[in-house]
Amino acid sequence: MAIKVDYPREFKGFAITDPKDWDRPKLTSYEPKKFGEHDVDIEVECCGICASELFSLKNEWSDAPLACLSSSYGPKSQVVGHEVIGRVVAVGDKVTLCSLGQRVGLGAQASSCMACPRCSSNNEQYCLKSVGTYCSRYPDGYVSQGGYSSHVRAHEQFCFPIPDRIPSAYVAPLMCGGLTVYSPIKRSIEGIESPRVGIIGIGGLGHMAVMIAKALGAHVTAFSRSSEKKEDALKMGADSFIATGEDENWSSGLTDSFHLILNCASSTTALDLDAFASVLKVNRQLLSVGLPEKNESFDLKPFTFIRSGCSIGVSKLGSRQEAIELLDLAAKHGFKPWVETIDVSEAGIHEGLTRLDRGDVRYRFTLVGFNKFFGTGAR
Amino acid sequence: MAIKVDYPREFKGFAITDPKDWDRPKLTSYEPKKFGEHDVDIEVECCGICASELFSLKNEWSDAPLACLSSSYGPKSQVVGHEVIGRVVAVGDKVTLCSLGQRVGLGAQASSCMACPRCSSNNEQYCLKSVGTYCSRYPDGYVSQGGYSSHVRAHEQFCFPIPDRIPSAYVAPLMCGGLTVYSPIKRSIEGIESPRVGIIGIGGLGHMAVMIAKALGAHVTAFSRSSEKKEDALKMGADSFIATGEDENWSSGLTDSFHLILNCASSTTALDLDAFASVLKVNRQLLSVGLPEKNESFDLKPFTFIRSGCSIGVSKLGSRQEAIELLDLAAKHGFKPWVETIDVSEAGIHEGLTRLDRGDVRYRFTLVGFNKFFGTGAR
Repeated sequence: MAIKVDYPREFKGFAITDPKDWDRPKLTSYEPKKFGEHDVDIEVECCGICASELFSLKNEWSDAPLACLSSSYGPKSQVVGHEVIGRVVAVGDKVTLCSLGQRVGLGAQASSCMACPRCSSNNEQYCLKSVGTYCSRYPDGYVSQGGYSSHVRAHEQFCFPIPDRIPSAYVAPLMCGGLTVYSPIKRSIEGIESPRVGIIGIGGLGHMAVMIAKALGAHVTAFSRSSEKKEDALKMGADSFIATGEDENWSSGLTDSFHLILNCASSTTALDLDAFASVLKVNRQLLSVGLPEKNESFDLKPFTFIRSGCSIGVSKLGSRQEAIELLDLAAKHGFKPWVETIDVSEAGIHEGLTRLDRGDVRYRFTLVGFNKFFGTGAR
Repeated sequence: MAIKVDYPREFKGFAITDPKDWDRPKLTSYEPKKFGEHDVDIEVECCGICASELFSLKNEWSDAPLACLSSSYGPKSQVVGHEVIGRVVAVGDKVTLCSLGQRVGLGAQASSCMACPRCSSNNEQYCLKSVGTYCSRYPDGYVSQGGYSSHVRAHEQFCFPIPDRIPSAYVAPLMCGGLTVYSPIKRSIEGIESPRVGIIGIGGLGHMAVMIAKALGAHVTAFSRSSEKKEDALKMGADSFIATGEDENWSSGLTDSFHLILNCASSTTALDLDAFASVLKVNRQLLSVGLPEKNESFDLKPFTFIRSGCSIGVSKLGSRQEAIELLDLAAKHGFKPWVETIDVSEAGIHEGLTRLDRGDVRYRFTLVGFNKFFGTGAR
């Protein structure tokens, strides 16, 4: 019954060909990207399900048809998944950052130019030639294929060694979601004595942000619409919890409180920017990491932000250096995302995607059992 | 013919009582705010005309009637003006920062609590109990009166000693406009080697921003809609000039260029945020200092800002420390705002306000001749 993968000639994975079938990826076989001298092949052991997958599968972040349909070679179908943990099974001639057999993680980025000022200043996530782990075009025209698969191929820079003590299913969500919240928290509070951080939205991203901000030494306030997640947030490490929908004056006692407010909710429209701006300290930021549907926007009134000279911005993923810092932090503090595992299969992926789509997750899914399903891992 | 002012019992100034008469302030006499032990009386020598005056006189920054109408005591009419240069003629018992006879400047802020964390960290401009130089309520209920007047009264913290070598008419615009652009430029580029700054809008604020950014050592690019002000901007010290309205692809060669873009235009709606976000460096800011009409807003699309992890924010005035730094910088570098002087009188103020309202100014007006008009200054 086990699937056989004719690796390295083929990868197998769960793909869609039409966004209207977003919740039913089908098992498929496909040609991988041409192997570069800095590339690494990862035999996937498990893969987190990130909310990005919903946007990508439904094609809500683009006005164009699915990018894979115009791939120069390889499949005209799309495999997603970018919170990959697995073993290195091949390395290009120039690879120095990974070794065969090593357990590594791959997040949402699979390549960058490695030559520009951004790449050389620990900002490779902002490289203008960045290639995402899926749905993203390589310079040779191949459109990248993600980690709901037997194998993924990526540049070594984006394959992070995983500390031994963290189980794969728990570390997977750190690869995209965890790193995405770690980077702005770290950059915003570095060097500040007694930093205070507010986290909006206790979901897939937010619950990791609470744990990470706490591990970084911050006083953490969790903001959620209702009290429903209060107990969970306190267990995650929040020092304080505010149900913004249950007290319209919640902000009045918190003026001038926060060095950072991190918006982890994926919609921008429900956010009371006036209230959140009022609780920031001077010249501090409200940063958003939950990327919404492409036409949503923040309505920023200068009068709201002038009281404290604040700004609102957006942060994207994190650098390799930050990924490694995050993994060290997780190993040291022993925090783990709250993960529900699902055995990988067409049915399992369908379950994960549809439950995530309706918010039925506390707080992150990891697809597991890849070795068993694909008949890999037998070494 | 000279007006007589029965100082210190009265101040005289040019006031309106109804926003529809915004362009015709009338000479009036009024009771000053009660004299506090940290207060300073300035006998006005000259006063800049700031675009804020138009918004305040037309009452476009508020939904309520003119604040002066509900003043606990003193006039029910409003004198504006907050770029004041003059001589100290009275000091409260506890004043240590100014002395009698000293030439000082007063900007847009006249008081703050002097006790909060913001006041004690060189951020008194963001004090939540800040009192503006006009249209702003003191704790005792008096609504402040500005500098189109014989005298103004303000807390010593906000009265800045003026270096001898700068003529009063040229230093006046630095008190509000100059400080408002100095603070965000200084804060944004401090510690950066070879900073690059973009200035949007070469007008009252922007022309000072070009000179100040240049004096602070930045490479300065001036952005304007047309080429009309190119020659002026280069004379002010801009290294480069871009007419955004004459080349729709202006941003394509400037990706990843700027450490700061300072928006000095007072409208938010004409700004192509996508283009300006694309020319910022990683994690840098577009800051706005031209406060628009109260309901205008920026439409911030997260997709626009995620490419470089940028943010958009607002900056307000500057601190006393920054005002003193700015004055030192102006004295050292010898830069001067481009000022057209107008003799103070009802007719002169009408001319200044109406010309500013239609943009007929290159680039700043200073009302002069206060001593002659009010019969003051004869010492």
